[in-house]
Amino acid sequence: MAANLSSFIAVDPESHFPIQNLPFGIFSDASNQTKRVGVAIGDFILDLSAVAWAGLFAGTPLEPHGAVFASPTLNAFMALGKPLWTATRNHVQSLLSADNPTLRDNQDLRSRVFVARATATMHLPVEIGDYTDFYASREHATNVGTMFRGKDNALMPNWLHLPVGYHGRASSVVVSGTPIRRPLGQRLPAKGATAPVFGASVRLDFELEMAFIVGTGNSLGEPVRMDKAEDHIFGVVVMNDWSARDIQAWEYVPLGPFLGKNFGTTISPWVVTMDALEPFKCAGPAQDNPQPLPYLREQQPSTDGAKHATAYDVNLQVDIKPAGHAEFATVCKSNLKYMYWSFKQQLVHHAINGCNMRAGDLCGTGTISGPTQDSFGSLLELTWSGANKVDVGNGGVQRTFIEDGDEVKMTGWCQGNGFRVGFGDAAGVVVPAPEIKFE
Amino acid sequence: MAANLSSFIAVDPESHFPIQNLPFGIFSDASNQTKRVGVAIGDFILDLSAVAWAGLFAGTPLEPHGAVFASPTLNAFMALGKPLWTATRNHVQSLLSADNPTLRDNQDLRSRVFVARATATMHLPVEIGDYTDFYASREHATNVGTMFRGKDNALMPNWLHLPVGYHGRASSVVVSGTPIRRPLGQRLPAKGATAPVFGASVRLDFELEMAFIVGTGNSLGEPVRMDKAEDHIFGVVVMNDWSARDIQAWEYVPLGPFLGKNFGTTISPWVVTMDALEPFKCAGPAQDNPQPLPYLREQQPSTDGAKHATAYDVNLQVDIKPAGHAEFATVCKSNLKYMYWSFKQQLVHHAINGCNMRAGDLCGTGTISGPTQDSFGSLLELTWSGANKVDVGNGGVQRTFIEDGDEVKMTGWCQGNGFRVGFGDAAGVVVPAPEIKFE
Repeated sequence: MAANLSSFIAVDPESHFPIQNLPFGIFSDASNQTKRVGVAIGDFILDLSAVAWAGLFAGTPLEPHGAVFASPTLNAFMALGKPLWTATRNHVQSLLSADNPTLRDNQDLRSRVFVARATATMHLPVEIGDYTDFYASREHATNVGTMFRGKDNALMPNWLHLPVGYHGRASSVVVSGTPIRRPLGQRLPAKGATAPVFGASVRLDFELEMAFIVGTGNSLGEPVRMDKAEDHIFGVVVMNDWSARDIQAWEYVPLGPFLGKNFGTTISPWVVTMDALEPFKCAGPAQDNPQPLPYLREQQPSTDGAKHATAYDVNLQVDIKPAGHAEFATVCKSNLKYMYWSFKQQLVHHAINGCNMRAGDLCGTGTISGPTQDSFGSLLELTWSGANKVDVGNGGVQRTFIEDGDEVKMTGWCQGNGFRVGFGDAAGVVVPAPEIKFE
Repeated sequence: MAANLSSFIAVDPESHFPIQNLPFGIFSDASNQTKRVGVAIGDFILDLSAVAWAGLFAGTPLEPHGAVFASPTLNAFMALGKPLWTATRNHVQSLLSADNPTLRDNQDLRSRVFVARATATMHLPVEIGDYTDFYASREHATNVGTMFRGKDNALMPNWLHLPVGYHGRASSVVVSGTPIRRPLGQRLPAKGATAPVFGASVRLDFELEMAFIVGTGNSLGEPVRMDKAEDHIFGVVVMNDWSARDIQAWEYVPLGPFLGKNFGTTISPWVVTMDALEPFKCAGPAQDNPQPLPYLREQQPSTDGAKHATAYDVNLQVDIKPAGHAEFATVCKSNLKYMYWSFKQQLVHHAINGCNMRAGDLCGTGTISGPTQDSFGSLLELTWSGANKVDVGNGGVQRTFIEDGDEVKMTGWCQGNGFRVGFGDAAGVVVPAPEIKFE
């Protein structure tokens, strides 16, 4: 994917959607409210259902499968399997390239297959069967563990041996732009209290995550081997795993997070494929001490002699626009490469017991924190459990946790030579809790 | 639902499926492999798609909705809402009653609408969007807490204030009769060990549960009030929440059970409606100390002055047929009435933060243990974490945990006056772990 690959569509060097990216999403627009599959290119969406209708997949392996692009989710397309994902992307790249006249020189065709991104509505890209959230950043797990159990017991004994994860709620995963309602629930009124009170959460937080989407699954009872894992992963999105820390702290022992998380999870609408991320592969943190058990070993060539799993160099950023103000302020800059357990390790571990993954399953990384204070991926860490405040710009506005009307926007991008392979935004405004009277 | 209500179909007094029950399920048979909706009656299934096709819903509120019964899951039917669930059941009850000649006296119609249960294949009754498992039996939580933390710290501080629950895995919920493959995974080789080993679970267990199925959901951000909760619940099944105790013990801190549970969960195929269970309502355990917060209060009239939530008097039983033997032996007799938090409380709590429930969601009770040793609903409790053995008949065969080839069968029924409203079976045979070589 060389930098000199270019499209006849003009793309700004800071755009997230150059011809080197070509992420897949589900969109509709005012003139055609049918949800359908598109690919982002610069300020436009290439409507793949229109491409198929126009016969532009003729002679490719996609020719008999055009109907998948008129589907309201990516699931039918993903079910075709990785060779066809790659074939589609390659063909779209060819159709969009500066030296291919098919679309470039046919204004009539162009008017039928391109939609301005600004006029489109994006939808949830996949029908999510199950949503799993991992806890794969060592820095995040260490920060949270230090706050809760002290520095010496920060990492649990299992953490370096397996990607710790838990099941999340699929129904409340929403696409970027969906307002998030502050949850009601039980919380302890003060440290040391023994009886809970009821009301709106007062410690509402974000969690900066990415998530991979399973493209093809496995049968119940049949684990996925590491050497086949990559074939199952369709692509990656940015994710905000909204968290009500007070609800979570009271409820989570001993079975894990539940209502502190499942009131809403925001994902970015464009799924960036593993093919687009391939040039940004790098070595993750060393996995030498201990080495993972053999089924989990996934070793990337590296120059330091240590054993590493595959990471991706994705810059991540969280911005907050406080209620009643106009400007976003950046509160966190992190990077996916800090993640200890790789996507492939997460998938292989998830299925090692025979658990059947399905197309559309969403697997979050957990909060991706880096080594420095400004790379912490949640307000829990940035404010050290509310002890400090975070500057959110606009002339000295500060936050401990999220207030009603605040907008939280997450984004991520890989920096190429003169282009960015980006993820767009995962954004949401927090709206007040419902007013419900009991008795 | 009087005992003298009777059908022209002969039904044994110990049958689970008299005219007082009429549970819904999804079936197919050799002569028609289309999955469709049926109602169990004695040894037969009334094919509701055939009933609709024959025009037998004419003049009822179901008349325009006949297509829902030709659907491969109950979801479309459930989406019609509680008034139509009840109308369907009432109409079916009328069609089956001894004094209604419509089917009774029409042999041709009967040959089209009845299928022998013995010749039918049962399928998963609903498409499960999300599966949640609660932990709602005080006796079970106390037993497990005592084993893990000692008698004085058995119940966590939150337990009496809210129905503790966690998200489970929807993809691996299977219908009764599906073999369960022993999971591979990580476990500690001995108490006090610090590094895990890899292999097949050596502490495979069952958990005796029931589960309710959500029939109609709520919108994201909109809690469900207690006085509306009943309208959302379609019915109830028996469930075996298979558990690998060694995998679970190593992985579950701090985010809860994951691979120790998600390799398989078995449910019974017939969904018993809340209408059928209504006559078996009773008071659950007292909820006085503490009283639940107002949003969770659900008080059933009772004679002892104490405040109780609604329970149901459902006898529950677990039988095991050990590998290589012919006979089942009963290892546990429990009752749903021991459950502390009611179905309605579980639902209201689940949605109080705005979490959107959807038709088809499955909510397990958690293991239902009673006060006596023989009512403990898991081998973990029956063997007190493997310290003792359990007799499984067949001339002195014993078990600590489940062995390959063992079949575990759970059942439940309400005892009426001369009839039973029963759930059929949730059964499964354990097959050996896959043989996978790494390196």
